[in-house]
Amino acid sequence: MASNFRNETDLLGKKEIPKDAYYGINSLRASENFNISNNKVNLNLIYAIVLVKKAAAIAHKNLNELSLEKANAIINACDDILEGKFDNEFITNSLQGGAGTSTNMNVNEVIANRAIELLGGKKGDYSCVHPIEDVNMSQSTNDVYPTALRIAAIKLLRPLSDALSKLQDAFQVKENDFADIIMLGRTELMDALPMMAGQGFGAYAKAFSRDRWRIYKVEERLREINLGGNAIGTGVNASYEYIFSVTDIIQDLTGLGLARSDYPMDVTQNMDVFVEVSGLLKALSVNLIKISNDIRFLGSGPMGGIGELKLKKVQAGSSIMPGKVNPVICEMVSQVSMKVMANDTAISLAASFGQLQLNAFSPLISDSLLESLEILTNAINIFREQCIDSITIDEEKCKEHLESSTAMVTALVHYIGYDKASYIAKKAIKEKKSIKTLIIEEKILTKEEVDKILNPYEITKPGIPKL
Amino acid sequence: MASNFRNETDLLGKKEIPKDAYYGINSLRASENFNISNNKVNLNLIYAIVLVKKAAAIAHKNLNELSLEKANAIINACDDILEGKFDNEFITNSLQGGAGTSTNMNVNEVIANRAIELLGGKKGDYSCVHPIEDVNMSQSTNDVYPTALRIAAIKLLRPLSDALSKLQDAFQVKENDFADIIMLGRTELMDALPMMAGQGFGAYAKAFSRDRWRIYKVEERLREINLGGNAIGTGVNASYEYIFSVTDIIQDLTGLGLARSDYPMDVTQNMDVFVEVSGLLKALSVNLIKISNDIRFLGSGPMGGIGELKLKKVQAGSSIMPGKVNPVICEMVSQVSMKVMANDTAISLAASFGQLQLNAFSPLISDSLLESLEILTNAINIFREQCIDSITIDEEKCKEHLESSTAMVTALVHYIGYDKASYIAKKAIKEKKSIKTLIIEEKILTKEEVDKILNPYEITKPGIPKL
Amino acid sequence: MASNFRNETDLLGKKEIPKDAYYGINSLRASENFNISNNKVNLNLIYAIVLVKKAAAIAHKNLNELSLEKANAIINACDDILEGKFDNEFITNSLQGGAGTSTNMNVNEVIANRAIELLGGKKGDYSCVHPIEDVNMSQSTNDVYPTALRIAAIKLLRPLSDALSKLQDAFQVKENDFADIIMLGRTELMDALPMMAGQGFGAYAKAFSRDRWRIYKVEERLREINLGGNAIGTGVNASYEYIFSVTDIIQDLTGLGLARSDYPMDVTQNMDVFVEVSGLLKALSVNLIKISNDIRFLGSGPMGGIGELKLKKVQAGSSIMPGKVNPVICEMVSQVSMKVMANDTAISLAASFGQLQLNAFSPLISDSLLESLEILTNAINIFREQCIDSITIDEEKCKEHLESSTAMVTALVHYIGYDKASYIAKKAIKEKKSIKTLIIEEKILTKEEVDKILNPYEITKPGIPKL
Amino acid sequence: MASNFRNETDLLGKKEIPKDAYYGINSLRASENFNISNNKVNLNLIYAIVLVKKAAAIAHKNLNELSLEKANAIINACDDILEGKFDNEFITNSLQGGAGTSTNMNVNEVIANRAIELLGGKKGDYSCVHPIEDVNMSQSTNDVYPTALRIAAIKLLRPLSDALSKLQDAFQVKENDFADIIMLGRTELMDALPMMAGQGFGAYAKAFSRDRWRIYKVEERLREINLGGNAIGTGVNASYEYIFSVTDIIQDLTGLGLARSDYPMDVTQNMDVFVEVSGLLKALSVNLIKISNDIRFLGSGPMGGIGELKLKKVQAGSSIMPGKVNPVICEMVSQVSMKVMANDTAISLAASFGQLQLNAFSPLISDSLLESLEILTNAINIFREQCIDSITIDEEKCKEHLESSTAMVTALVHYIGYDKASYIAKKAIKEKKSIKTLIIEEKILTKEEVDKILNPYEITKPGIPKL
Repeated sequence: MASNFRNETDLLGKKEIPKDAYYGINSLRASENFNISNNKVNLNLIYAIVLVKKAAAIAHKNLNELSLEKANAIINACDDILEGKFDNEFITNSLQGGAGTSTNMNVNEVIANRAIELLGGKKGDYSCVHPIEDVNMSQSTNDVYPTALRIAAIKLLRPLSDALSKLQDAFQVKENDFADIIMLGRTELMDALPMMAGQGFGAYAKAFSRDRWRIYKVEERLREINLGGNAIGTGVNASYEYIFSVTDIIQDLTGLGLARSDYPMDVTQNMDVFVEVSGLLKALSVNLIKISNDIRFLGSGPMGGIGELKLKKVQAGSSIMPGKVNPVICEMVSQVSMKVMANDTAISLAASFGQLQLNAFSPLISDSLLESLEILTNAINIFREQCIDSITIDEEKCKEHLESSTAMVTALVHYIGYDKASYIAKKAIKEKKSIKTLIIEEKILTKEEVDKILNPYEITKPGIPKL
Repeated sequence: MASNFRNETDLLGKKEIPKDAYYGINSLRASENFNISNNKVNLNLIYAIVLVKKAAAIAHKNLNELSLEKANAIINACDDILEGKFDNEFITNSLQGGAGTSTNMNVNEVIANRAIELLGGKKGDYSCVHPIEDVNMSQSTNDVYPTALRIAAIKLLRPLSDALSKLQDAFQVKENDFADIIMLGRTELMDALPMMAGQGFGAYAKAFSRDRWRIYKVEERLREINLGGNAIGTGVNASYEYIFSVTDIIQDLTGLGLARSDYPMDVTQNMDVFVEVSGLLKALSVNLIKISNDIRFLGSGPMGGIGELKLKKVQAGSSIMPGKVNPVICEMVSQVSMKVMANDTAISLAASFGQLQLNAFSPLISDSLLESLEILTNAINIFREQCIDSITIDEEKCKEHLESSTAMVTALVHYIGYDKASYIAKKAIKEKKSIKTLIIEEKILTKEEVDKILNPYEITKPGIPKL
Repeated sequence: MASNFRNETDLLGKKEIPKDAYYGINSLRASENFNISNNKVNLNLIYAIVLVKKAAAIAHKNLNELSLEKANAIINACDDILEGKFDNEFITNSLQGGAGTSTNMNVNEVIANRAIELLGGKKGDYSCVHPIEDVNMSQSTNDVYPTALRIAAIKLLRPLSDALSKLQDAFQVKENDFADIIMLGRTELMDALPMMAGQGFGAYAKAFSRDRWRIYKVEERLREINLGGNAIGTGVNASYEYIFSVTDIIQDLTGLGLARSDYPMDVTQNMDVFVEVSGLLKALSVNLIKISNDIRFLGSGPMGGIGELKLKKVQAGSSIMPGKVNPVICEMVSQVSMKVMANDTAISLAASFGQLQLNAFSPLISDSLLESLEILTNAINIFREQCIDSITIDEEKCKEHLESSTAMVTALVHYIGYDKASYIAKKAIKEKKSIKTLIIEEKILTKEEVDKILNPYEITKPGIPKL
Repeated sequence: MASNFRNETDLLGKKEIPKDAYYGINSLRASENFNISNNKVNLNLIYAIVLVKKAAAIAHKNLNELSLEKANAIINACDDILEGKFDNEFITNSLQGGAGTSTNMNVNEVIANRAIELLGGKKGDYSCVHPIEDVNMSQSTNDVYPTALRIAAIKLLRPLSDALSKLQDAFQVKENDFADIIMLGRTELMDALPMMAGQGFGAYAKAFSRDRWRIYKVEERLREINLGGNAIGTGVNASYEYIFSVTDIIQDLTGLGLARSDYPMDVTQNMDVFVEVSGLLKALSVNLIKISNDIRFLGSGPMGGIGELKLKKVQAGSSIMPGKVNPVICEMVSQVSMKVMANDTAISLAASFGQLQLNAFSPLISDSLLESLEILTNAINIFREQCIDSITIDEEKCKEHLESSTAMVTALVHYIGYDKASYIAKKAIKEKKSIKTLIIEEKILTKEEVDKILNPYEITKPGIPKL
C-alpha cells in the first residue's frame, strides 16, 4: 500500500511529510514549533519573498551561477505561486521565532518542490532542485526578509495613499456643499462661535492631506534594501556580480525604485524605519478617531442628541428598538484605528528588543505593519463610500442650536460693548430666547443692523464683522 | 432555471442571499460594511453566544414564552453549531462597528435557519422561526455580548491557568535538578555574586506562581453577567421570570458559577474588568519576556557567548551557516508576549472610548482579549515542552565564569578585609587568574581555609560564610 | 581663605563637594551623570528608604553589630530627614542608571553626614559614620530599593483607596438624588431607552466600587519584601539574626504588615507586581476617562449641546467669549488618567527589560508608579469636590429629549405591536411630535392608558410595563 | 495693619491674591483646580507664549490698536520674563483642564502686572493694563497655545538635532578606530559570521543618521501656525491687518521661519503633527534602546560575560562588591528612551480624544512632547561624552571568541565543501579547538592557505574569500 507521506531529513533527523505537500521538513517543524494560533504569515509578505527569489534566480541565471534549467524552473515556480495557486502551502505561523527563517525556508521549499515538479522530478528529491543551495543561493533570511518586507509595505502604502487622496477629496466636496450653511462651533463641547459647516469639513480634509503627504513621502525610506548583504550584512559568500545585478532585477520586477543600501549591515539589524512608518499610521489613526467621533457626535440623536449631521443608514442597529440605526461605519473606523495604535505598540516593542546583528522579532513587526496598512486602506475606503459621500446636514437644527446659543454675541461685542454683551448672553440663556430676538426686543440695535453684523459670511471669516 | 439566491428584507430593503447560506441579510450587510480583512469573529465568542441563545430558549420553553416546537428546534440548532458544523457561516469581521450587534445577528440568523431546516422549513422563511422575535427573544446584543465574552474568557482562562501551573512545575524541576550547580550571579549584566543555578530557576518558578494565582483569582471578576439587562441594563421588556431563570440555566450549561450582576446597567457599559484581565496578562507577558530573554542570554554562543545553558535543538537555524541553531522557542515566547502587550493597548483604548450606556468598541476588546488568552496558553505549553523541560547546564562553563570573576571575593571580605579583597580582585582581573589561586599564591589563606569559606552551600545562602 | 568645598574620594578619585552639602561624592557624580532634567527622585521613595535605613540601624544596634553611639546618630538623622528638613539634599535625577544605587547612596550619604554632624564631627569625615559600612551595613541597593518602593507604594495606595471610597459615595448620593428623574438612555450616542438619571450615576458608582476593591486588595501583593536578600537575593554577608529582626522592625516602623518573601531572589529581579498594580490603575483610569467624558457629553452646551447636566463653574473659560465656562475638572481628570496610561507603558517596558538577577530600570518603574498613585488620588478628590458633589440636572431638558425621541415606543410594543410602533416612531421623527402626543392623537390608546404604560417607575425596571 | 493680600474679581466672584504676586485671580483659581502634583507648566512653553504676546503687542502698537505706552510696557514686561526673572510666577500645573487657557491666562496676568509695575501702577489695577483686553488682545488661547507649542518644540528640536549629529560623528570615529579589529558577528545571540568591530559601530552611526535626518526634516511640519485664528480658527474679531502682521513679527522675533496656515481652523483642532513628531522620537528611542543594550551586552562581565567592549567608569556601582562598576550611562539612555515611548502613549491618547473645534487635552501633549525633547537631547549628549567617546575594545577577547566559534567555517565552505565544513565545525565545538587549528591539524589546508582565505579584510566584505 502506498504511503501518504514522504520522508525528509534535516540536521535534527528524519520526518514524515504529506506526500502532496509542496512545503518540506523545515516548514513542518516550524509549523509545529510555533503552533500558537490559526494566523499564518501575511500573503503579501510571502509574495514579496517569492519576487526576491525570482530576482535571485534570474541574476544567477545571467551569471551562470545556476544552470539554465534549474533557474528557469525556479522562475516558473515563482510565477505559479504569485498567481495564488499555492497559498495553502505557506503553513508557518505569523508569530514565529527565528527572525523569519521559517518563512524563508517555507518559501524555499515550496519553490523547490514546484520547480522539481515542473522538471518532472518527485517532490522531496532535492538533488533535482535544492531549497537552500539553489533557491536560496547567495541569500540569507536576513537579507531576503527585510527586503521583502519593504517591498510588501510599499505595495500596500500605495493603495493607502490612494484611499487617503479620495477621502480628502470627499471631505472637500462636502466643504463645498456645506460652504454656506452656518452652524455652531464648539470648543470643549461648549458653545463657542459661529462657523460654516463647510469649514468643519475643510479642516478635516486638511488633516487628511497631511496624512496623505506623510504616506506618500515615507515610501522613500523603505526603498533602501540590504539584498546581497547575506547573514549579517557583510555580503560574504555572495559574488560581487550577483550583489549588484540582483538589485537591478528586483527593481525591474517590482517597478518600485528600490536601491541597494550603502550599509547593508544597518538595514539587517535596525528596525527604526518600520517604527517610523507605523508612527505615521498612528498619526493617521488619531485623525480618523477624532474625526469619526466628531461625526458621531454631530450625528447623535436623532432627537435626543445633536442631530446636525445625517448619516446614511447601512444596517439595522437593534433587535429591540424599532428603527434604531447606529453610526457603525464611524465606529468601525475608530476601532480599526485603535487596532493600528495597538500594532504600533507591537512594532515598537519588537524593534526595541533587537540585538546586535539581527532583530529576532521581525515577524511581529512584519505581521503588525502589513495588517495596519491593509485594514486602514479598507476602512478608509468604506468610510468614504458608506459614510462621508452621503452625509447631509439638518440646516434647521444647525440654525436652531446656533441661534439659541450665545455664540452670536461675541460678534456684537465690537458694537454693543462687552458688558451689554454679557448681560444679553445671560438673559438669553435664562429666558431661552435667541440673542437676535433679545437685541431687537431691548432696542439695542435694529433688525437691519443685527442682520448686517451677523451676516454669516462676515462672522465666520477673519476680521471684525462690519455694520 | 433555479436561482442560487433567496431574497431577504430588512429596514433598508431587499437583498439576495446565497440560497444555501444559514446566515441572513443582517450578516451579509455587516460582512460588506466591515469588509476590512480576512479575520472573522473568534469562534470561542461565537460558541459562547450560542450557549446564551440556548439558555434563553430553554428559559422561554420552561416559561411557555416560546412554543415547545420552536424552542426545541432552536436548542437543537445550537447544539449543531456547538459541534462545529457551521463555523463557516459566521462571516462578520472581527473588527465591526455596532458593539457586536452584527455578531449577535449572525448567530441569530444561523440558529434560526438551522432551526427552520430542522423543522422542515425553507431557509429564509422566518415565519417559521424568527431570528429576532424567537432566537433573540427577551435579549439584546448589549446583554448577550458582554455575557458571552465573559463565558468565552473564563473558558480560555482555565487552560491558561493549567499551562502556567505546569510551567511553574517545570521550572521547579529544574530548580531541583540544578540545586547543587554553582554559577555566577549577574546584576546589570556585570559579574556579581555566586549563586546556585537552581536558585535562578526557582526565582522564575516563583514569578510564574504569582501569574498563576492572578489568572486563577481574576476569574471571579468575570463571573458577574448582565444577561436579562437587555439594551441598556434596565431589563425592560424581559419578564421577571425569564431574567431569573436564564441565569440559572446558563450557569448549568456552562458549569462556570456565573452570577447575575446586581447592577446590569454597569456591566453593560463599563469595560474595566477586561482591562483588569488584560493587565494581568501583561504582567505575565513581562515575566515571559524577561525570563525567555534570560535563557537566551545564558544560552548564547555556543562558543562566543555565555554558553552556560544548553537548549534543545528544535529546528535548523540558518541556510548559510553549517549547524547553526537558534533559541527560536524563547523568541516565539517573547514575541507572543509583545503581541499580548499590544492587545492590551487595544483593549485599554477601546474601553476608555466607551460612552454612556454602551461601549461601541467591545468587538475590539473581545477579539484582542480572546486572542491574548489563546496565544499565551499555546506559547506557554510549547515553551515548557520544547524548551524548559530539556534545558541542561554546562557546569564547566559555569565554574569557569564564576572562578575567573571576582564574585568570590565578596565572601572573603569578612576574613581578609575590604582592602586586601580589593587588591586581590584587581590583580585577578589583570592577571586573568582566579581569586582562589591568587589567595593561595599570595599565602593570604591556605587552600583548606579558602575551600571552607568558599563552600558553595555557604556562600549562596543567607549569613556570613563560615571558616 | 576658607574654601567653600570639601574633598571626597571614591574609586574614581577625588572630587570637590560643596562644604555645606549633606550629600557626598557618590550623589554628586550621579547627579552629573544623569543630569537630564529637573525632576528629582520622588520624596515618597526617599522617605521609605530612610525608614529602611532606620530599621537596619535599630536591628544592628540590638544585635551589637553597630555601636550604640553610631546607631543612635543614624536613627536620629533618619528622623530629621523624615521631618522634611533635608529634602533639597536629594539631588539625583528621577531617571538614573544603576537600578537605584545612586538614590540609595544619596540617602546613605545624607544620613551619614547628618549623623556625623549630630556626633559633633565634620561633614565628609566618614571615619566617624560611614555611608556604606555603617548606614548601608548588611544592605544592598538591590534589597533596600524594592523594599522601599513597596512601602512608598502602599503608603500612596491607601489615600487613593480613601479617595475612591468617597468618590463612590458621592456618586451614590447622586444616584439617590436623581432616582426619580427620568431621562433618555443612549447607546452608540443614539436614542435608546428611558432610564432614571439616578441609575446612570449608580452604574458609575458601581464601576468605582470595583476600582476601590482592586486597590484595596492589591496592597497584599506589595507586602512581600526582600530586605536581607542583599545584592542578588541570596543574603550572603548579612547575619541570620539581622535578616530576621530587620523585617520585624520595618513592620513596626511602618505599621504596614510587611512580610519577608520566602524567595528574596525573586523579589529582587522580577517586577511583575508593579505591572500588576499599574494595570489596575489603568483600569481605574479607563473608568475615569469614560465617566468624565460622559459627564462632559451630558453637560455640553449649554444651549447647543445636550445640556442635561449642569456643572459647577470653577473658573472662567475664555478670554473672548463672554461668560463661557468649560468642564475643566472633567478634562483634568481625563488627562491625569491618560498620563497614568502612559506611565503604565513606561512600567511595562521597564519591567520587561529586566535581566537576570536584577532589573536595572527600576528607577523608571518607581518614578512612574508613584506619580500615578499621587496624581490619581489628587485628581479624584478634586473631581468629587469640584464636580460630582455639585452636579445638578436640568429635568426639563431630560424630559424634552426623552419625549421627543422614540425611546418610549419600545415600551408600547407589547400593547400596540411592533408594526404600529414603527409607524408611530417614524411619524414622530418626521413631524417632530412626541410619541405620547401621536398615540393619543391617533387614538391608539387613551391618555390614561399611555400614562400608565409609560409610568417612569415601570419602564426603567425589569419586566414588561403594565397597563 | 497692611494686608498681605489684594482682592481680584472674575465672573465667579472675589478672591484674595498674595499682594506681591504677579499672577492674578485666574492663575490662582487654576492652581487650586489642578493641584494634583508639583509639576508646573514647562518653562519652554511659557517663554514661547511670552514671545507670542510680545509679537501681538508689537503688531497692535504698529497698527495703533494699543497705545504706545501700554504696548511698550507689555513688550518690556515680556522681555523681563524672558530673562527668567519671574519663573516662579507661573503656578499652574502641567496637567490642567481647559486646553491651556489657564496657562495663557497666567502669562497674561504676569505680563499685565509687570507692565503695570513698569508704568508705576499697583498690581491688580487692571484699568492700567488689562490681562485680557490688552495683553490678550485679538488672541485666544486656542491660537496662542498651538503656536507657542510649535515654537517651543522647534527650539528644542534643534539642539536635539545637534546632539544627534555629534552622536553620529562619535560612532563614526569609532567605526574608523576599530576598522581593522576583527570580531564575531552574532545573530539571535548565537555565533554567526566574522565582522570588523568598526562595521558594528558604522551600522549604529547609520541608524542615528536616519534619526538626525528625521528630526531635521520634521521641523517644517511644525512651522505652520494658526496665530490670528482666534477661538476656533475663523479669525473673527481680529483685524486683517493684525493677522497678517503678527505672523511676520513672530517670525522675526523667533527667527524660525514660521508661516501662517492657510487653514487655521485645522491647526486649532487637529493634533496629528505632534503625534508625528513624537513617533519620530519613538523611532529614535528604539535605536537608542537597541544600541545601548548592545553595548551593555558586549561590555558585560568583565570576566563572566562577553567583555569585548570596555566602558569608561563613571561611578561606583556597588556598596558590597569591591570594585564593581556598572554600565549606568547606557542604562540611563535606555530608561530615557522608554520614558519617551511612554510620552508617546500620552500624546497619542490626548490627540485622539480631541473633539470638534479644539483639543481639550493639549496640555498633556505639550508637557509630554517638550519633556521628550529635553531629556533625549541631554541623554544623548551624556551618552556620547560619558560612554561612546571613550569606548575601547579588548582585541584579544574578540579574537578568542571569534576563533573558538565556528563562524570562520562559513568562509571555508567554498574551498572544503559544506560536508567537511560541518564535520570540522562539530569537532571544533566538541574538542574546544579553533577551526583554524583543526583544519591544519587534519591537513585539509595548509596554514598559508587558511591564512589567505581567512584574511580579515576578505571575509568581512562582499564576495567569495579568495585563496
